[in-house]
Amino acid sequence: MMKPLNIGIAGFGTVGGGLAEVLRDNADWTKRRAGREVRLKMVCDLDESKKGLIESFGAAYTKSLDDILNDPQIDVAVELIGGTGVAKDFIIKAIKAGKHVVTANKALLAEYGDEIFPLATKAGVYLGFEASVAGGIPLVETIKGALAGNRVEGMLGILNGTANYILTEMTDKGMAFEPALADAQAKGYAEADPTLDVEGGDPAHKLTLLIQLAFGVHYPFEKLPVTGISVVKPIDIGFAREFGYEIKLLAHAKYIDGKIEAGVFPALIPSDYMLAKVKGSFNAVRLEGNAGPVMLMGYGAGDRPTGSAVLADIMSVAKGVPANVFGFEDDVLPEADILNLDDAVSPHYLRFIVPDKTGLLRDIGGVMADHGISIAQAVQKGQSEAPGEGVPLILLTHEAKADDIHRAMDDADSRGLCLERAMHYRIF
Amino acid sequence: MMKPLNIGIAGFGTVGGGLAEVLRDNADWTKRRAGREVRLKMVCDLDESKKGLIESFGAAYTKSLDDILNDPQIDVAVELIGGTGVAKDFIIKAIKAGKHVVTANKALLAEYGDEIFPLATKAGVYLGFEASVAGGIPLVETIKGALAGNRVEGMLGILNGTANYILTEMTDKGMAFEPALADAQAKGYAEADPTLDVEGGDPAHKLTLLIQLAFGVHYPFEKLPVTGISVVKPIDIGFAREFGYEIKLLAHAKYIDGKIEAGVFPALIPSDYMLAKVKGSFNAVRLEGNAGPVMLMGYGAGDRPTGSAVLADIMSVAKGVPANVFGFEDDVLPEADILNLDDAVSPHYLRFIVPDKTGLLRDIGGVMADHGISIAQAVQKGQSEAPGEGVPLILLTHEAKADDIHRAMDDADSRGLCLERAMHYRIF
Repeated sequence: MMKPLNIGIAGFGTVGGGLAEVLRDNADWTKRRAGREVRLKMVCDLDESKKGLIESFGAAYTKSLDDILNDPQIDVAVELIGGTGVAKDFIIKAIKAGKHVVTANKALLAEYGDEIFPLATKAGVYLGFEASVAGGIPLVETIKGALAGNRVEGMLGILNGTANYILTEMTDKGMAFEPALADAQAKGYAEADPTLDVEGGDPAHKLTLLIQLAFGVHYPFEKLPVTGISVVKPIDIGFAREFGYEIKLLAHAKYIDGKIEAGVFPALIPSDYMLAKVKGSFNAVRLEGNAGPVMLMGYGAGDRPTGSAVLADIMSVAKGVPANVFGFEDDVLPEADILNLDDAVSPHYLRFIVPDKTGLLRDIGGVMADHGISIAQAVQKGQSEAPGEGVPLILLTHEAKADDIHRAMDDADSRGLCLERAMHYRIF
Repeated sequence: MMKPLNIGIAGFGTVGGGLAEVLRDNADWTKRRAGREVRLKMVCDLDESKKGLIESFGAAYTKSLDDILNDPQIDVAVELIGGTGVAKDFIIKAIKAGKHVVTANKALLAEYGDEIFPLATKAGVYLGFEASVAGGIPLVETIKGALAGNRVEGMLGILNGTANYILTEMTDKGMAFEPALADAQAKGYAEADPTLDVEGGDPAHKLTLLIQLAFGVHYPFEKLPVTGISVVKPIDIGFAREFGYEIKLLAHAKYIDGKIEAGVFPALIPSDYMLAKVKGSFNAVRLEGNAGPVMLMGYGAGDRPTGSAVLADIMSVAKGVPANVFGFEDDVLPEADILNLDDAVSPHYLRFIVPDKTGLLRDIGGVMADHGISIAQAVQKGQSEAPGEGVPLILLTHEAKADDIHRAMDDADSRGLCLERAMHYRIF
């Protein structure tokens, strides 16, 4: 019988509480799985009112992170503080103290991973971050392990439940972005400051980590192109539906001839794709491997889903699974050779608002032809509701370079063909 | 730099060929992932015409399994012979020779696992079988590892692509079972002897393994209740659709108060469930954990999907992942306490064929009431097409015990209310 594995948690919020619950409720089970007892020895939180709750889980309460760092009996430091300040300092100190580290902190690892990961590799400690990418979906270890034989060449994911919930509400109820966001905030699905969720920062953090896991290259977070969903209008959701597509906030990455094309942005996917059917606060990722596609789906956030992902990493430490941060032998991953999204080739959806007069389809069509863009479908919608209001003109293009699409939009503007700037979405 | 890992393959069919291809095409990648080279050293196959192909992969050809068993340089024996005869003997000898074993043989492990698994545990060798459960879907290692913190309490899976393809064709094209099967055979999706696929034996093998992995108990294969899809009629697929359900061949297992309720059978699931949207030859499993649901989907069979799963296991050996057959510390899993499916409680779909005369709904309703079965919806379809032909009467029940449903069906028969034996399906 091996000795118990002692863990110390830094930060006792939603995920910490979920972890403590799962540890308590599944204690015997965890022991059967891991081959040894996993003990919650200490919890650090600045909020003293949590002392009673923490002690009810059999753990010692402290206000000082040093108490965890300096306790030689603590084998695993679980960082659930969040942010890139105190959390970063804590993780680095824990690694240097020879402790294994488990964290749910995607922002920290996406932005400072190139500093933290090599430290863990050098120290030979386990650095688990299953919980940092899509909470309850077992993505990190799966890409490193059970899927390692199926080389991933592309991935498309819905990696933010809040944005997906808002888009689902906009789609199903025809709501505009602002009221849908307000509704999500009122229901507790969106935070008071929703920027990271709705503007794509959160899925971009996750995608940065997934790119390293799947492709074995480091794509600097600050270089990742990101567009959120606040630009999405109900009119485009409606037209997309008419053409058989849904608008989703997608995290996209593709390996093309040694280069990586990646970004987070709203785009159209066919309504009969499984990803299009991922509703509400669920997350899902479709991995396109050279031995076939695999899709994983589940809760991307929440106390127990994320807590259980933290526990999975703790159990890997308990079982003695070899430390292997990104599932590659490299100590430091090589820098990604980045393909500019402007050069990406795909079909596009374009929506113009044009004056309600004849000849506009011919004129816009002329602009497209001038830029070598081939049109697959065109629909000009009926009459304007009020004089001078304009009518929507929708184009679905064949494969075209994003840059050519932008130039065609500029051209349509400069020729005075549109009443407002056109909207365009990539189609997958 | 660690020394190369040498593998020997026994049986060079579809999966063996897929593995050799993936090993060759991803050689550098595999080395980066595994930290050492993985070499295909020897392949055994009785068919001498494959010698050239095998040698083209850089491997030695042999007709004798002993050549693999007796080669001290071969670290991993990959069993792709299939069946429960020669394959069993080979695996046992390989384990006793101290070799790690990787296999895609679900039938062997489901039927003789209680003999083989303890041998591997005792010898301390790795016994990988990722490829034996749903081919390209990373289920085995995921349940043992990345999902270990989310205790599975129920699972519902589509685990046979052939049966799912046939049901999809029957559903989309209104075909009867026999022509849909013949069509699948003509297209190469079903084998000449389709029994294992269409009668549920194949998904039952997989479910037997999944139960051990997820619940940590041994459910003897021969005790698992199995019904195939040859009983499914287009009329029921059509009515199910009208009520908002799809008929799928489901592998079902649930942990209820320490007991296991499990079986493979066609059943109704709501059309808006993700599982209902799994079409054609795809496989998918929904795992209901106590920290939330997770769904995994992908190809359940095929050369490269299955070959890549075999390779994932080989890479785990290469990386030194601790041997741990079922992801539990137990050397031998305890026997499952089996809940009889007759005692299972769920809503049911019932279709009677009754004479085209008044009062039948009252009479059938009376039978249901006599057995304490509460009706949620009832629909009696129009007039019979020819005198004496009868009309369908469909009932959807509230939660009822399967046994009570059977008794009510017997009762309706003995009272002479039906023109043929009623059909019933469980509803999930």
